[in-house]
Amino acid sequence: MAWDFETDPEYQKLLDWADEFVREEVEPLDLVLGDPYDKADPRHRAIVRPLQRQVRERGLWACHLEPELGGQGYGQVKLALLNEILGRSRWAPSVFGCQAPDSGNAEIIAKFGTPAQKERYLQPLLDGDISSSYSMTEPHGGADPTLFTTRAVRDGDEWVINGEKWFSSNAKHASFVIVMAVTDPEVSAYEGMSMFIVPAGTPGLEIVRNVGVGPGLEGREGSHGYLRYTDVRVPADHLLGEEGGAFAIAQTRLGGGRIHHAMRTIAQVRRAFDMMCERALSRQTRTGPLARLQMTREKIADSWIEIEQFRLLVLRTAWLIDRHRDYRKVRKDIAAVKAAMPKVLHDVVQRAMHLHGALGVSNEMPFAAMLLGAEALAIADGPTEVHKITLARQLLKEYEPVEGLWPSGHLPTRRTAARERYADVLERAIGNE
Amino acid sequence: MAWDFETDPEYQKLLDWADEFVREEVEPLDLVLGDPYDKADPRHRAIVRPLQRQVRERGLWACHLEPELGGQGYGQVKLALLNEILGRSRWAPSVFGCQAPDSGNAEIIAKFGTPAQKERYLQPLLDGDISSSYSMTEPHGGADPTLFTTRAVRDGDEWVINGEKWFSSNAKHASFVIVMAVTDPEVSAYEGMSMFIVPAGTPGLEIVRNVGVGPGLEGREGSHGYLRYTDVRVPADHLLGEEGGAFAIAQTRLGGGRIHHAMRTIAQVRRAFDMMCERALSRQTRTGPLARLQMTREKIADSWIEIEQFRLLVLRTAWLIDRHRDYRKVRKDIAAVKAAMPKVLHDVVQRAMHLHGALGVSNEMPFAAMLLGAEALAIADGPTEVHKITLARQLLKEYEPVEGLWPSGHLPTRRTAARERYADVLERAIGNE
Amino acid sequence: MAWDFETDPEYQKLLDWADEFVREEVEPLDLVLGDPYDKADPRHRAIVRPLQRQVRERGLWACHLEPELGGQGYGQVKLALLNEILGRSRWAPSVFGCQAPDSGNAEIIAKFGTPAQKERYLQPLLDGDISSSYSMTEPHGGADPTLFTTRAVRDGDEWVINGEKWFSSNAKHASFVIVMAVTDPEVSAYEGMSMFIVPAGTPGLEIVRNVGVGPGLEGREGSHGYLRYTDVRVPADHLLGEEGGAFAIAQTRLGGGRIHHAMRTIAQVRRAFDMMCERALSRQTRTGPLARLQMTREKIADSWIEIEQFRLLVLRTAWLIDRHRDYRKVRKDIAAVKAAMPKVLHDVVQRAMHLHGALGVSNEMPFAAMLLGAEALAIADGPTEVHKITLARQLLKEYEPVEGLWPSGHLPTRRTAARERYADVLERAIGNE
Amino acid sequence: MAWDFETDPEYQKLLDWADEFVREEVEPLDLVLGDPYDKADPRHRAIVRPLQRQVRERGLWACHLEPELGGQGYGQVKLALLNEILGRSRWAPSVFGCQAPDSGNAEIIAKFGTPAQKERYLQPLLDGDISSSYSMTEPHGGADPTLFTTRAVRDGDEWVINGEKWFSSNAKHASFVIVMAVTDPEVSAYEGMSMFIVPAGTPGLEIVRNVGVGPGLEGREGSHGYLRYTDVRVPADHLLGEEGGAFAIAQTRLGGGRIHHAMRTIAQVRRAFDMMCERALSRQTRTGPLARLQMTREKIADSWIEIEQFRLLVLRTAWLIDRHRDYRKVRKDIAAVKAAMPKVLHDVVQRAMHLHGALGVSNEMPFAAMLLGAEALAIADGPTEVHKITLARQLLKEYEPVEGLWPSGHLPTRRTAARERYADVLERAIGNE
Repeated sequence: MAWDFETDPEYQKLLDWADEFVREEVEPLDLVLGDPYDKADPRHRAIVRPLQRQVRERGLWACHLEPELGGQGYGQVKLALLNEILGRSRWAPSVFGCQAPDSGNAEIIAKFGTPAQKERYLQPLLDGDISSSYSMTEPHGGADPTLFTTRAVRDGDEWVINGEKWFSSNAKHASFVIVMAVTDPEVSAYEGMSMFIVPAGTPGLEIVRNVGVGPGLEGREGSHGYLRYTDVRVPADHLLGEEGGAFAIAQTRLGGGRIHHAMRTIAQVRRAFDMMCERALSRQTRTGPLARLQMTREKIADSWIEIEQFRLLVLRTAWLIDRHRDYRKVRKDIAAVKAAMPKVLHDVVQRAMHLHGALGVSNEMPFAAMLLGAEALAIADGPTEVHKITLARQLLKEYEPVEGLWPSGHLPTRRTAARERYADVLERAIGNE
Repeated sequence: MAWDFETDPEYQKLLDWADEFVREEVEPLDLVLGDPYDKADPRHRAIVRPLQRQVRERGLWACHLEPELGGQGYGQVKLALLNEILGRSRWAPSVFGCQAPDSGNAEIIAKFGTPAQKERYLQPLLDGDISSSYSMTEPHGGADPTLFTTRAVRDGDEWVINGEKWFSSNAKHASFVIVMAVTDPEVSAYEGMSMFIVPAGTPGLEIVRNVGVGPGLEGREGSHGYLRYTDVRVPADHLLGEEGGAFAIAQTRLGGGRIHHAMRTIAQVRRAFDMMCERALSRQTRTGPLARLQMTREKIADSWIEIEQFRLLVLRTAWLIDRHRDYRKVRKDIAAVKAAMPKVLHDVVQRAMHLHGALGVSNEMPFAAMLLGAEALAIADGPTEVHKITLARQLLKEYEPVEGLWPSGHLPTRRTAARERYADVLERAIGNE
Repeated sequence: MAWDFETDPEYQKLLDWADEFVREEVEPLDLVLGDPYDKADPRHRAIVRPLQRQVRERGLWACHLEPELGGQGYGQVKLALLNEILGRSRWAPSVFGCQAPDSGNAEIIAKFGTPAQKERYLQPLLDGDISSSYSMTEPHGGADPTLFTTRAVRDGDEWVINGEKWFSSNAKHASFVIVMAVTDPEVSAYEGMSMFIVPAGTPGLEIVRNVGVGPGLEGREGSHGYLRYTDVRVPADHLLGEEGGAFAIAQTRLGGGRIHHAMRTIAQVRRAFDMMCERALSRQTRTGPLARLQMTREKIADSWIEIEQFRLLVLRTAWLIDRHRDYRKVRKDIAAVKAAMPKVLHDVVQRAMHLHGALGVSNEMPFAAMLLGAEALAIADGPTEVHKITLARQLLKEYEPVEGLWPSGHLPTRRTAARERYADVLERAIGNE
Repeated sequence: MAWDFETDPEYQKLLDWADEFVREEVEPLDLVLGDPYDKADPRHRAIVRPLQRQVRERGLWACHLEPELGGQGYGQVKLALLNEILGRSRWAPSVFGCQAPDSGNAEIIAKFGTPAQKERYLQPLLDGDISSSYSMTEPHGGADPTLFTTRAVRDGDEWVINGEKWFSSNAKHASFVIVMAVTDPEVSAYEGMSMFIVPAGTPGLEIVRNVGVGPGLEGREGSHGYLRYTDVRVPADHLLGEEGGAFAIAQTRLGGGRIHHAMRTIAQVRRAFDMMCERALSRQTRTGPLARLQMTREKIADSWIEIEQFRLLVLRTAWLIDRHRDYRKVRKDIAAVKAAMPKVLHDVVQRAMHLHGALGVSNEMPFAAMLLGAEALAIADGPTEVHKITLARQLLKEYEPVEGLWPSGHLPTRRTAARERYADVLERAIGNE
């Protein structure tokens, strides 16, 4: 037990296998297959199933789950290291059974669902046979639950849901949606909201449009559903967890997810970094390769420092979660990770893009999507400002105001105290001179 | 004659008219019409022609041109102020007869073209009946002409062109392309390249693909042609200007263009800024509108300072051009404008986007295109680094190394000199005490 | 009347004279003389008086004053251009009769003082025979007047003042102090404070210590007096202006002062910039002078852009003051200048310091003082944050919240409106195809 | 063996003891005692000796030394954690027997010295009876050894040294100086320089002046000796190590020193951070304590993120040193630490200073010294730029240029390869639809 910056050799072997497997077998899928959420596409099944089998054989399938659901109980540090590999490829999370939002949805059904809910919704989700959506953010309230207005009212054996949600990722391919709605407007949002499972096709559930992240391309479909609920009726047993328990469930869902997200972001950043270095060596200018120019070298050096520092912060946070087993004790660390994440991605990608010249900004390279992804990260799951404020508030708890700070207090006060304390010694010493 | 930060009242009236006209009549076109370069679309002609007539009546049609071509001889400051209005709308430059690359192409044909070239290519371009492309950047050489490899060889009465160009904007709609090619590889690029007019449809001229700026959307067509020239033959009289004169012509073409570009950029930045302020007042949070939060206010304040400062730099540069009538004397100013431009656009747009939350990153708003536009600006017409180095080199010409800088030189030296000079006075003064 | 970025030729000649005069005659004084506030030092008088005579002969002595006090009515733009020269030297303001805080104190006595006050305090101040101090900032309240607690109570024919002030510049050399104190605690600070002239030596007026800006050097005296007022009695006729009028007087005092301060700051920045360029050319590295390195060039280019942009912002603000003759109409511009000023100084000085290596951080060069000066600027006369908030608040007044911003409003709304407007034309156009 | 972010419990107890000891017993010394290098001051001995005894009893005295010299063989991670405590106080390194430059000088004498040198110079240094100086940097060559010109020539049984060195810290109190001089100008600096021990008082060794870091205070003595060597003669046995071995010795000296320096810097940063948080809670504004303002919270949050990230980078580097036991293998990590260090210190201190208002910039607080310290850090032991370039060069070694990067290469190439690979499966899958 002492500072250590590497994992145990056995797990490292697994990581090495995953690393090669993702590079050789999974990354190419990003270049030939479409949207991983589209379970209906027969090409997906044909190509992906055999790969998923290999993952299962190594014990890495859905390994973030609790052991009773088939997971390995790895803890957040190990999961973080795995996600650092999976983040390189759009398809890797599907191949490894941890594609958001399905993975998070599976977790909360496993933890809070009834046996019937588990049978009907959890198992096919775990098997990758269906996909799902998570419907929380509202057009007017962003990600702040205290501003949500979508309402569910009990009517006999049913709940009737009305309202609007958007950025419900993957809604168009989802077999069901988990929606968060106000059930008791008299109490605070933290106690007055509940979660419901709404099967696709339920009357009144409408996809107004599918919003994309990116430049405005009218007619181009995005993947974030803007959903309207008009008198949507679900049976009473489609309540997920307790009535009024939605906020607590939502927090659970975030748990390690933010760490995994951060490590997948690092994977993206590193891809951009690798491409930047390759470009710097490959591109010739009048005076040699770009890599010879000081300005290029500064970009590379700054990027590496930023990536490495952020990565260590994420891993330390994962380690703190494993150690405390209580997310409340690492709230400030998680907030710090969330606040720092978009900037690292943005800054490194911007430099990599720039070093690629016109090619970099073109749609032949992945940088534009990454750069916009950084902006999306700075908003999703709460804007950066909110996380910085959370962090500062937690930090300030460890301090107290200083009485009479100035002019009588603080440094001058301490100086006076120190002088009084040593008055004798100082005098004696001088006396001895 | 003394410091003044506004234009004369008569021109201001014209600007006021243009401002209202663009807001009321032109900006809506961006929301209903397609690509302004597509001259074949009958809707374009039906809607745009009447608007162009109004512009002509005011004397603002193509007013950047020399008076003999129908321009007004306004000078760069006035053109800058007009472009600050036109930059708000994608369609405005077409409506006002100054759409790049057509406007630049028209200028060089007017200045360097033969009477036959003017009749065949210039007039329809000025009339907005056809559009054109400018084919300079190469895949391997970027915008650095010394690295260009596209070659034109004289063969009897023809020139035979071979090579590849890309980021040839609007090539897919162009009736002709102006291409820059090496005609004498024995001399420097500044003297060994020539320009040619290549009509669309000339055998051997192929659009490999149309590259876009943005996230990688395979199958989605961009507007920047990647052109391949394979034994493309044009008659000898399609040489534009003198043999070996391409570099000089290209410089002419840049002239005031960079200033216009900068002012159009400011128009974009200001649009983002306006939307940011409206959003700050409209969006409610738990504690009131976003506008009440310090972090929002800082974003707004920083943005205004950056915009105003940059705008004044651009206008001062325009004024210096008008005053010196020699671009070489304002090289450092133009380089400074070019180097500063992408950062202002990026930083303000990023803040505006962020304040719009999920909506901001979505394809329902223009921010993503603007943000990527900033990255494209940082590359187009030479990367920022090149312009900074030009600027520094020009600035350093005004200084000389200091002999024996240290330890004998500089401040200590000057201190000694000052003491010697005043020795008498100091002594006397003290004597008088 | 039209955009112009230079002054009239006659005034330019005066500036040219001042420029040479300051370089040749005044700057050396900084290297041989002590504190300009020390009017008692006989060397100062012996050397400075002849120089002041030359300034008077050119009509540039105290030329910021109203014409009736001997000023020239130059307006802020011209004064700004002069201050850009004076800011290069610590002694120049004394030589030109515009040394703060004496110049501001003279202005308010001239404007609000009684004839007796003018005779006793104004004239010797204008003549440079005495110096003065301005006692506003409080240890606990900073520069926010609403938090001030120093109190003046009327007692018969006298006012009795009690409280503490600090950062009262130059108090140790001052013949009198102008102090701001609460006279009516029942009303707001804007109406309940008054100003008093307190002659040096008045019983109860004590300099607790003289604080310096810089690294903690105990025993080293600074120039910012920390004053304690204990039952300080001044005659009733030492009230300056009306009872309750202190806030309004203080605002007057700031007036053009902030512009002059900003231009003097630019003078400092430019000195640092000049030294940076000279160093870049003089210092040899393994591969030639520092100036050849890209990283050096970027520092130089960035610095020039920042300086020029800021300078234009300041001059435009000066021009707006001259034009509106009402400071309230340029509040946002002045706030912007104040907010941007410390950053320009800091960033350029930091680069210049760094390029000087160990010499740069040493006490043999002026950079350390300049760098700390930038931090002091960011606090003096209100911290940067306050000015950014003022700026944002003023800017937001020009905007209104957008009704139904989202999802029904804004861009989508405008898109719908545009489509309806052009429905006919679009249909007809297509019909004609 | 697995990721771990804490030390073993026994060492943690020692650290806890040191932490309290430094806070309670050592930090007050900074407020009452003078320069730790001044071994002659009787007050120092009277107060410090008993504290040093306590440190010895705990086994923490000079514990960076090799075990054979009395150290503990702790390794760099443990030493780093201890230095994070010692860095809080100016006096702590003296109390713990690891004051630079004495500690580094002791190390190289221990490693390369003759028995006679050890007896005469090492033992009293280890005992804290004398102090020493390290004379490497030259006025004209900075810290780049290839530009050094100080020369030592063998003359019989003596070496004769001529040249100038500066920033020889603590020279004025030193009993001896270790100087680096060219002994063979025919070979490269890496093989042609040697080190010599020069006792204080040797004829020809002159302190031209003592330079300070800070604002220019003429007459105020700094602690960095500017030394002139004029025909300084030392006996041949005062050569330290082998002739020509100076560069290798100097590298040894840097070794873990940079890590210790970095951790002491973190201690300083954290002191500033603590004061910032206390101030935020203590200082009242119109609307409550500073801590309530968003802009304050952002400063606190950003600072914590920057500190924590940098600290983890330093500790990982320490761990890599312990693991590889070869500094060459962690060159890039050490360069990254050195390059990142000044910015963290600067940015956090600047914010803490600013939040303290006028008090912050005054000489009553330690911020000014810290801020200038950050600038000194950015120069000492090689400017930041040099370390960034070292880092980038090391990083680029791990990459290779990509053949035919574009247009045929890279992403498009990989896309084509992926399509070919999966052609069959894709076709079959579609066939099965």
